[in-house]
Amino acid sequence: MPDRSLIFPAAEYRARTERLQAEMAVHALDALLLTTPADVFYVTGFLTRFWESPARPWFVLVPATGAPVAVIPAIGADLMSRTWITDIRTWDAPDPVDHGVSLLTDTIREMVPVQGKIGVPSGLETHLRMPLSDYETVLRRIAPRSIDDGTACVQRVREIKSDAEVAKIRETCAIAGRAFDRVKDFAGPGRPLDAVFREFQIALLSEGADWVSYVAGGAGPDGYGDVISPATPTPLDPGDILMLDTGAVRDGYFCDFDRNYAIGTASDTARRTHHALWNATEDVLRDLRPGHRACDVHRMLCDGLTRRGAEPGGGRLGHGLGITLTEWPSFTPLDQTPLRAGMVLTLEPGAIVAPGRMIVHEENIVLRENGPDLLSPRAPAELPELVG
Amino acid sequence: MPDRSLIFPAAEYRARTERLQAEMAVHALDALLLTTPADVFYVTGFLTRFWESPARPWFVLVPATGAPVAVIPAIGADLMSRTWITDIRTWDAPDPVDHGVSLLTDTIREMVPVQGKIGVPSGLETHLRMPLSDYETVLRRIAPRSIDDGTACVQRVREIKSDAEVAKIRETCAIAGRAFDRVKDFAGPGRPLDAVFREFQIALLSEGADWVSYVAGGAGPDGYGDVISPATPTPLDPGDILMLDTGAVRDGYFCDFDRNYAIGTASDTARRTHHALWNATEDVLRDLRPGHRACDVHRMLCDGLTRRGAEPGGGRLGHGLGITLTEWPSFTPLDQTPLRAGMVLTLEPGAIVAPGRMIVHEENIVLRENGPDLLSPRAPAELPELVG
Repeated sequence: MPDRSLIFPAAEYRARTERLQAEMAVHALDALLLTTPADVFYVTGFLTRFWESPARPWFVLVPATGAPVAVIPAIGADLMSRTWITDIRTWDAPDPVDHGVSLLTDTIREMVPVQGKIGVPSGLETHLRMPLSDYETVLRRIAPRSIDDGTACVQRVREIKSDAEVAKIRETCAIAGRAFDRVKDFAGPGRPLDAVFREFQIALLSEGADWVSYVAGGAGPDGYGDVISPATPTPLDPGDILMLDTGAVRDGYFCDFDRNYAIGTASDTARRTHHALWNATEDVLRDLRPGHRACDVHRMLCDGLTRRGAEPGGGRLGHGLGITLTEWPSFTPLDQTPLRAGMVLTLEPGAIVAPGRMIVHEENIVLRENGPDLLSPRAPAELPELVG
Repeated sequence: MPDRSLIFPAAEYRARTERLQAEMAVHALDALLLTTPADVFYVTGFLTRFWESPARPWFVLVPATGAPVAVIPAIGADLMSRTWITDIRTWDAPDPVDHGVSLLTDTIREMVPVQGKIGVPSGLETHLRMPLSDYETVLRRIAPRSIDDGTACVQRVREIKSDAEVAKIRETCAIAGRAFDRVKDFAGPGRPLDAVFREFQIALLSEGADWVSYVAGGAGPDGYGDVISPATPTPLDPGDILMLDTGAVRDGYFCDFDRNYAIGTASDTARRTHHALWNATEDVLRDLRPGHRACDVHRMLCDGLTRRGAEPGGGRLGHGLGITLTEWPSFTPLDQTPLRAGMVLTLEPGAIVAPGRMIVHEENIVLRENGPDLLSPRAPAELPELVG
């Protein structure tokens, strides 16, 4: 029986750690302190839904050379011991007096030279998952060791997916693709939107998702006003466009794409808009190459929509994807991040159909030297109609 | 059609805000800065799974008097406008140059006096959900305004649930209770554990969960080694004890309780242990009163187990519950938090059955003046057997 708690062979995590250490050398960092579920999973393979409890912080310290050290609550020792990590230090948490602070301090003092610099991800798309007052205490106690921003170090490594990671994301995308194929079985005129959301999550689980971290969507005449709200019990009406968007998870890896459906017969407006979105995506699937920047994708998608008579809208038009629902970069006019081979990305053009109403289209790709390779099964060129 | 995005009438949120402001006055705070999904939902009713994306921070500023102000990414404006909040300030996020920093700074400067003090939750069970470097920039720009720990202020308010909140948690517990009743339909000898986890999530959704944020469990001879791992495909064996534990969500409110099942005929060890766990819980259901401290519950449960020949184990033996899977306090020997009427709590005694193997039992209660009121349907006194 393979141990699925590891997800990948130890060699995968060792290679990740070595790539992090190469970046750390460039940034003159003597260690990286990681605190989020994604960063901890990335270097260790420690995967659990227990992060849902805010009661306990978890720490991984990546030294300049050698294997990472886990400084974690005792409740995680059994699971962590099944990863490739061998240096596991635990405390009985939650401890209102010393919530891992002494153990983390001692570990840093032991592993980082007195004049050393520790990278902590502090920039865009990061947060520190530990009590701020404990962090400040650790900083005082490890002085004169200093802190520097570890964001670029982590992001330049994590954004390039290994073939093993791409295979996982492709598998999750296939699961969601099969669930989308079943939407016609439970969505149609008169069906309440919240029931559709539930059935869609059930379909994702039935098709092999380990869990469903994200489902959103919307429905409205020719388009929807908002793509982040929970579902209401409002029944679907003929003339509505229904959108479902999911971040399902298999083996710790997300998909993130959506599908649109016309309830009853699609209007000309809806069909024209869907056509523009689909073809603007085709342009990028054909033309995108490593060396383009994130903002170039935004421009390519906007141009593709405008040329076809659609009005671009909906904020950023795509982003990175992997072990969180969304990763950097963002396809906005401001994001200059260079795109590189091995990045997994979403193409997510949105078009305004009326004031306060839009349609959003989304696919997942991995960027290769010769262009994008689709990970999500391609949406149908024609907007599907659910006649119920 | 009621607007479910609000969950409660505006009066509920106004009362919460006034209770926060009363605590703020005690702590001499001129404002509270909130950044986490739970804190933002608590004061505004803003409920979305979109927090799953780490790309954007969200801010709510609670002033000393009057309604809170939302400082949020534009993508959330539509949903926030359906809450009781009217002062909603947005920026186009993600913005790699100014990710809400100027807007938040300006809002604080406008609303907090120059010599004012802003509470930021920084203690046990908290974290700051925004990039650390942006936080440091805001701090510099709002000087001489200062920061103080807002943890106690938020926790003393949130830990006392209104009747409307208790009703929501009771409803989620009922959903999970019905899903547990269906476990016999899909778990039994030979069934892979990961398939059981999927079917259990499907049952939770079918019974009315909006989503399933947490499922954990374990299976092994007479008990399990670990309660936080994802499921493996290992088939259930006669003699195993299967445990399933869930934090399902309905209208933003969690349940958090588990159930145990013997696969085939339960051994004497398993039955004796389950009996001790069930009866130790009965003791607390009978004897617990406001005025007890968190550590008293730990002692009561340990005494109840020891007296019945079982060995207490499994870390903390319960905790708070509400709009996150776990809330403070923790039933450990160290936690002195006084228990008060209106607290929703889990009773979670664990017992060691063999080295590295345990059984954990869990119920959810609301503490009233005259003692606990069960929110979860009480587990059967006898360990159920799945003969499949």
